Amino acid sequence: MKLLKQLCEIHAPAGSEYKMTDFLLDYIKNNQRSWKNQPEIISGDNFQDCIVLVFGKPTTAIFAHMDSVGYTVGYKNNLIKIGGPSAKKGAKLVGEDSKGKVDCTLLAEEDEHQFLTFTADFDREIDRGTTLTFKPDFREDDDFVQCSYMDDRLGMWNAIKVAESLENGVVSFSTWEEHGGGSVGYLAKYLYEQLNVKQALISDITWVTEGIQHNKGVAISMRDSGIPRRTYLNRIIDLAKESKIPFQLEVESAGGSDGNSLQRSPYPFDWCFIGAPEDNVHTPDEKVHKNDIKAMVDIYQYLMKHL
Amino acid sequence: MKLLKQLCEIHAPAGSEYKMTDFLLDYIKNNQRSWKNQPEIISGDNFQDCIVLVFGKPTTAIFAHMDSVGYTVGYKNNLIKIGGPSAKKGAKLVGEDSKGKVDCTLLAEEDEHQFLTFTADFDREIDRGTTLTFKPDFREDDDFVQCSYMDDRLGMWNAIKVAESLENGVVSFSTWEEHGGGSVGYLAKYLYEQLNVKQALISDITWVTEGIQHNKGVAISMRDSGIPRRTYLNRIIDLAKESKIPFQLEVESAGGSDGNSLQRSPYPFDWCFIGAPEDNVHTPDEKVHKNDIKAMVDIYQYLMKHL
Amino acid sequence: MKLLKQLCEIHAPAGSEYKMTDFLLDYIKNNQRSWKNQPEIISGDNFQDCIVLVFGKPTTAIFAHMDSVGYTVGYKNNLIKIGGPSAKKGAKLVGEDSKGKVDCTLLAEEDEHQFLTFTADFDREIDRGTTLTFKPDFREDDDFVQCSYMDDRLGMWNAIKVAESLENGVVSFSTWEEHGGGSVGYLAKYLYEQLNVKQALISDITWVTEGIQHNKGVAISMRDSGIPRRTYLNRIIDLAKESKIPFQLEVESAGGSDGNSLQRSPYPFDWCFIGAPEDNVHTPDEKVHKNDIKAMVDIYQYLMKHL
Repeated sequence: MKLLKQLCEIHAPAGSEYKMTDFLLDYIKNNQRSWKNQPEIISGDNFQDCIVLVFGKPTTAIFAHMDSVGYTVGYKNNLIKIGGPSAKKGAKLVGEDSKGKVDCTLLAEEDEHQFLTFTADFDREIDRGTTLTFKPDFREDDDFVQCSYMDDRLGMWNAIKVAESLENGVVSFSTWEEHGGGSVGYLAKYLYEQLNVKQALISDITWVTEGIQHNKGVAISMRDSGIPRRTYLNRIIDLAKESKIPFQLEVESAGGSDGNSLQRSPYPFDWCFIGAPEDNVHTPDEKVHKNDIKAMVDIYQYLMKHL
Repeated sequence: MKLLKQLCEIHAPAGSEYKMTDFLLDYIKNNQRSWKNQPEIISGDNFQDCIVLVFGKPTTAIFAHMDSVGYTVGYKNNLIKIGGPSAKKGAKLVGEDSKGKVDCTLLAEEDEHQFLTFTADFDREIDRGTTLTFKPDFREDDDFVQCSYMDDRLGMWNAIKVAESLENGVVSFSTWEEHGGGSVGYLAKYLYEQLNVKQALISDITWVTEGIQHNKGVAISMRDSGIPRRTYLNRIIDLAKESKIPFQLEVESAGGSDGNSLQRSPYPFDWCFIGAPEDNVHTPDEKVHKNDIKAMVDIYQYLMKHL
Repeated sequence: MKLLKQLCEIHAPAGSEYKMTDFLLDYIKNNQRSWKNQPEIISGDNFQDCIVLVFGKPTTAIFAHMDSVGYTVGYKNNLIKIGGPSAKKGAKLVGEDSKGKVDCTLLAEEDEHQFLTFTADFDREIDRGTTLTFKPDFREDDDFVQCSYMDDRLGMWNAIKVAESLENGVVSFSTWEEHGGGSVGYLAKYLYEQLNVKQALISDITWVTEGIQHNKGVAISMRDSGIPRRTYLNRIIDLAKESKIPFQLEVESAGGSDGNSLQRSPYPFDWCFIGAPEDNVHTPDEKVHKNDIKAMVDIYQYLMKHL
């Protein structure tokens, strides 16, 4: 879990993924020799801050997003949301501006229309446009791991674990997922036009709800705000049953993922969201059960072989 | 109207269009010999559940969507909307899960926030992710046809009627229209890049409103939530006047169609929504006047020749 | 400012940009001989009502939108918004229908749900689908210019001023920006695939707010509803500092531009919104300080050279 802890600690809110890109490229270069197969690494100029790893003769691509929710500092330390952070007042936020490190506290107040407004409590005015993220506090016991940004550093971690033994397939690290998307369109274009890949698995973290619980297995989402193509979904569920790996079927009305971006792209992609569930979504305390993490890695390994 | 009745009875909510695809491919194979011209039939692998018929040297494409609104079964027979169904409690819903046919009744209750929540009233728990659609009840008299899913089985029916005598043009059957789209992007890509087609007519069903009434002709929509390019719209209205076919000009603030998806695609498509109006939109009782249906077929035949 | 006045007076709400296209093509043909370099002019068939000017060996494209907000006439002189006009009752509106010129007044009334509904006060029923825009009233003094549609006729004007001396770069005039977009996707496709251009500057007008004031320089937007890629933004801010041209850093939670459309396109475009701020957004009285206009032209000239 050392790698997961490192990933959780990197400041990379949507739009500012570059530190994560640097870390990940370094990590891959330093570790890929121990992987079963060597991928082609695609990044740089035409891929903005994204990274694509191509193994063998791929038919399916894993998507994991590198960005997190957070805040942009506006005028007079006013805070504007990046994506949908749900922290309560008192949460610790960190960032950096021209005057140095910022380590501050979230204030929340109702304005005259009863809307919550957010401010950074800090001893000086922070530069306009500075990005702040939750101060990492990684916790681990026998059953759970807990930290800000399990969503989606754990999805990235899963993708890297799968990459270690992958023979054929693509692993894509995307950007801007938490704030409306913006990279999946050109990733889909590349995968479809250059590699004829049009099947995707969305390696992301979902919610503990009435129907999805800790330690009941990885969640296979049958729908959220987006609806995947049923014939693809059925193939995945059949394979999941065959695999004997513990899984739960999720059916939600809300929420979305890089799957929605794939669906809106002008390429005929099938997609399905598969991920461990977490408590305390988009707060500093996202919490996931270790058995569900194991099931997540297992099912991805199985599906990347058989799909 | 036998074909229309058959189309209305097929279970194919957004995302689960595959039964409609199978029916339509069969229908085309069994009937195309009686058509004036034989189209190239494009479907399969790179088109998901869509079907494209290419006749002669096309300049204009008809789009009709195969999917309908409906419900996904969540946890404990809770229902989640697919698209925007508007049925009242007591509506009959049908589907099928691992234990067999489902024939149930829609319950609607206000939750603590006064939001309506929907449940399937059935004698057992239905499998998670099962899709339900309105139980078909096709009614016909001298003036009207009425059933669930005139939107857009009647639009499909119109497209097939036009196909019977079409010389040059494309007929496209799309998916996911009722739930945010997802196929029109790649259909547009194919039409534009492979066939240089960039004019579209949206064969869909609209609403009876203050300005649009039964038996006053097919509606040509000047706008809804989307705004078509005015010069294209003007050409269509001029041709409609020239044709002497009864039509009504529609101007709405809301609603959308595959036209919006064409507009958002990265291809320079012109589009215009043209369709008969219906009462009781997105309920089991969608009702359309036969004279408006006739005008719809007539104007499509005319426009596909002259546009 | 004669050209700016002319641009402000052209009726070209979203979807009906064709008069602006004609004017601009004429203007370019009549004036380009006095420009430092001659662009390739791309327009017509595959570009709908858009115009693209390509100078030399471009790396960066300016986007300015030709359309404005306005109203579509519905049934019985009811008005439906095109984009988000914010005029108060009594505003003067103009257009033209089959019976001649329309010069009318905006009425606003609350309906039974306390929603504002809008009507055109005129002595006859206006044709369905007629488009209305604010009656132009161009005002100028030593410090300010004021008229409807500074957004984005001033952005166009800036793009034309920059074109006069541009060596390498693209100037794009887009459509539908005020109403959900629809042209930027295929413009991005052309720029990326044909010219390998993937950097954009959005030449548009922003808002005077708590943090952005008249006569404090051109605004460089660090974010609005969309978040540009940080590494691109940082390069621009560094160049702006180096240039010594007066600028203000803007951080907003709402609003959007052609930048959002570029981000959602399946091409890896970097974008940044840079423009003078105005008072009275989307009303007949949009007001901009002349020093901010000068700074806008200066910074575009500088960035198009150094970016």
